[in-house]
Amino acid sequence: MVSWGKSLRLEVIGVQGIPLIKRGDNIARLLVEALKRMGENLRDGDVVVVSQVIVSKAEGRVVKLKDVKPSLRARVMAERLGREAEVVELILREAEEVLRFRDGHLITRTRQGYVCANSAVDLSNVSGGDAASLLPLDPDLSAEKIRKEIRKLTGRKVAVIISDTFGRPFRLGQVNVALGVSGMEPIHDRRGEKDLYGRKLQVKEIAVADELASAAELVMGEADEGIPIAIIRGYKYKRSRRPGGRRLIRPGEKDLFL
Amino acid sequence: MVSWGKSLRLEVIGVQGIPLIKRGDNIARLLVEALKRMGENLRDGDVVVVSQVIVSKAEGRVVKLKDVKPSLRARVMAERLGREAEVVELILREAEEVLRFRDGHLITRTRQGYVCANSAVDLSNVSGGDAASLLPLDPDLSAEKIRKEIRKLTGRKVAVIISDTFGRPFRLGQVNVALGVSGMEPIHDRRGEKDLYGRKLQVKEIAVADELASAAELVMGEADEGIPIAIIRGYKYKRSRRPGGRRLIRPGEKDLFL
Repeated sequence: MVSWGKSLRLEVIGVQGIPLIKRGDNIARLLVEALKRMGENLRDGDVVVVSQVIVSKAEGRVVKLKDVKPSLRARVMAERLGREAEVVELILREAEEVLRFRDGHLITRTRQGYVCANSAVDLSNVSGGDAASLLPLDPDLSAEKIRKEIRKLTGRKVAVIISDTFGRPFRLGQVNVALGVSGMEPIHDRRGEKDLYGRKLQVKEIAVADELASAAELVMGEADEGIPIAIIRGYKYKRSRRPGGRRLIRPGEKDLFL
Repeated sequence: MVSWGKSLRLEVIGVQGIPLIKRGDNIARLLVEALKRMGENLRDGDVVVVSQVIVSKAEGRVVKLKDVKPSLRARVMAERLGREAEVVELILREAEEVLRFRDGHLITRTRQGYVCANSAVDLSNVSGGDAASLLPLDPDLSAEKIRKEIRKLTGRKVAVIISDTFGRPFRLGQVNVALGVSGMEPIHDRRGEKDLYGRKLQVKEIAVADELASAAELVMGEADEGIPIAIIRGYKYKRSRRPGGRRLIRPGEKDLFL
């Protein structure tokens, strides 16, 4: 568990029975209780993937639209986007930079550094449509807090990933990615390993935290199923104390694709 | 199995004992034999994820570098990239379009439509470095052939994904994506479904084939472990007869991120 290992069999387990989350809720405790009702327990080495929206709710990162005063800029953009000015105001507040603004879409770099649609401001699964969830201010810290609380409650050493579904360039559809990572290295750097023929791998840095988030999404579903947490069991990751999510963000000036 | 279903528990199983693949090899047969040695069998509804490199080898999409005559353009670019002119020649031949060429990197749109580094021309796991693998000419067709052969050999209805690890903009590290897909819908379109509060989801098209490819990578590893195939069991996908990989490619003119 302390380093990358061979994992020939993984399990991905959706956690049933997590209640609707309110500000101040202890997600680690609710997880442990839900697992107990399922007849399950956390084990050392499990990866716990938590959907961003419940973390945002527990941290109070939810804003009622009626409490938002849109700026002139937000109102003008909202008109062109065909969206509510209050929502656009929140998108702009969460944006470090607006990267694209056309065809009814806003692509921004958020204050945390993620590039995504609408600063990930989301009206789904928050309330009937009169409030929006914002990303946690520091998803790595959110992940660390949940990891430490799990350790306190159960004694188990796990890794925690805070995930959200993001669109991406070049490919259609959204995939779940890792915003916050605690307890593991987010990237498996395999450069220098030998291939099947003894030749050194040149380029091979696998974003395993994103792949774990994607695997978790297959059982999660953020909508009516209400499975906001999944456990991945059997993956032998390398443990790390460093915040991991921010290390998955490609610095703009190093972006070969743009 | 005929439509999207609730899947609370998945297994991801790395297939051991696949031999080194040669041109003309029957991957479906080698898979069935390897599973038998593991005491496993395919089941209806399994998703079989196959690493691109063994498909390319079986299809003869491997080129000896000494048989490649580099053009003047390839030689000039190779000089600037610090790479072998023969490899750059292959990258250019596989490219529909060169999108970026700087800092020692070539980003292309391949003839199949994928945007990736170096047209996915790869010297790893092919030989000692004197040959390169090229992507299958039509990964959807490659997936379909393997799926049909599995059906013939075992009677089992499975989905097949041909995968490769690609870099991506905005985020560091590579993730496994689905190049070819047969037997399933590659995208779970959840628009119109209701959220936890009865509000209709606005934007929710999950690229589940990419997420399945990413989940598979966690047990695959393309290097010395030699696990080029993984089975995902328990995921309730929607069956489809339409080629799926090409439907994950975002048309350039619709790319909101660029």
